Amino acid sequence: MSKTRIKTYDKIIIESLKLFNEHGERAITTNHISAHLGISPGNLYYHFRNKEEIVFQIFREYEAFIREQLTPPADRAPTVDDLSRYLDAIFQGFWRFRFMFDDLPGLLSRNPQMQAEYHHFIGTELQPMMIAFLKGFQQSGFLRFDDEETISLLAVNIWIVVKFWYAFEQSAKPKVPISPDTGRRGARQVLALMRPYVSADHLESFKALDARYR
Amino acid sequence: MSKTRIKTYDKIIIESLKLFNEHGERAITTNHISAHLGISPGNLYYHFRNKEEIVFQIFREYEAFIREQLTPPADRAPTVDDLSRYLDAIFQGFWRFRFMFDDLPGLLSRNPQMQAEYHHFIGTELQPMMIAFLKGFQQSGFLRFDDEETISLLAVNIWIVVKFWYAFEQSAKPKVPISPDTGRRGARQVLALMRPYVSADHLESFKALDARYR
Repeated sequence: MSKTRIKTYDKIIIESLKLFNEHGERAITTNHISAHLGISPGNLYYHFRNKEEIVFQIFREYEAFIREQLTPPADRAPTVDDLSRYLDAIFQGFWRFRFMFDDLPGLLSRNPQMQAEYHHFIGTELQPMMIAFLKGFQQSGFLRFDDEETISLLAVNIWIVVKFWYAFEQSAKPKVPISPDTGRRGARQVLALMRPYVSADHLESFKALDARYR
Repeated sequence: MSKTRIKTYDKIIIESLKLFNEHGERAITTNHISAHLGISPGNLYYHFRNKEEIVFQIFREYEAFIREQLTPPADRAPTVDDLSRYLDAIFQGFWRFRFMFDDLPGLLSRNPQMQAEYHHFIGTELQPMMIAFLKGFQQSGFLRFDDEETISLLAVNIWIVVKFWYAFEQSAKPKVPISPDTGRRGARQVLALMRPYVSADHLESFKALDARYR
């Protein structure tokens, strides 16, 4: 692979992501992308067969980002600082790839390969990652749970609030454009879900964390 | 208004709701609706100017349903039975009007009049209703909160889980059609949100309620 080829390939990904985020994925065609980049449609098609392939590659970058940021530490229990880093990473990820979450079911239904990979990612990686992360906090004494079921119900509620936070804000305040601040409010909603389970001797550091998102 | 006119008007609403729920609102045109009813398109247009007007009337029925079911009792604090009735009503409402929640932001953006009324309904009715309902449970001693902020954070989290429950289930299990059982699982997720705030002497009746949705 020549240097130029890599460059154009990456440029298409980067600029498509920008265009999708600004205008919505449905409004953007491969013609818009090639015009925006000042390359010929033929040059774009040399790298990607169609728009779905571009979207799919962007999705893979999102997956890699989440995997890198959210894998719990293997050698120690997670700390409050880890929690802060996780929250930042989650909402930064949503922000950076926000076009994907405007209408995820629609996007997936138009892209069966991505749909399959998405469900595989959620089922075999993200869900176990979230459970591992809550159990890690239980081990470290930061969170206390009465039983396993409480953990799995909480994991689902966290997942729903995280996943739909931007959509919720958008439909509650359609005139207010989404900003990184939206993510900070989202982080506080997630912390509110965890707060009842924070053990007494970690409440102060938890409150300090919460204050950082105010 | 003659009897026939009322009948046709209502029939259009009822059958459109069925068609929208089965096939999605975007896939159904006024022609589909009139053909399904065995009436002429002209007869349909005598009652409704366009599809948006039908959708808007259905939305008003949803609003009326929620208003009727969720208004907290004026003369007494709500009981655990009320909570059960509320949960049933919320998820029944979502089920009965499920096409609206497939892509609510999209639906609203295509129907500005409905968008305005929706936001008015949420802001001036539904949000205060939810706060009143949590405070009613605080008064009756069923729930305990440390401060006002806890109540408003919880109200938002309940609202997100309720609003996006079907979308969440649909994207998590795209092959499994949504059923009334989906609503029961949703009710348990909402109860999991409230559980940390249930006071000790009401925990038994809370568990009994939770068991009803298993």
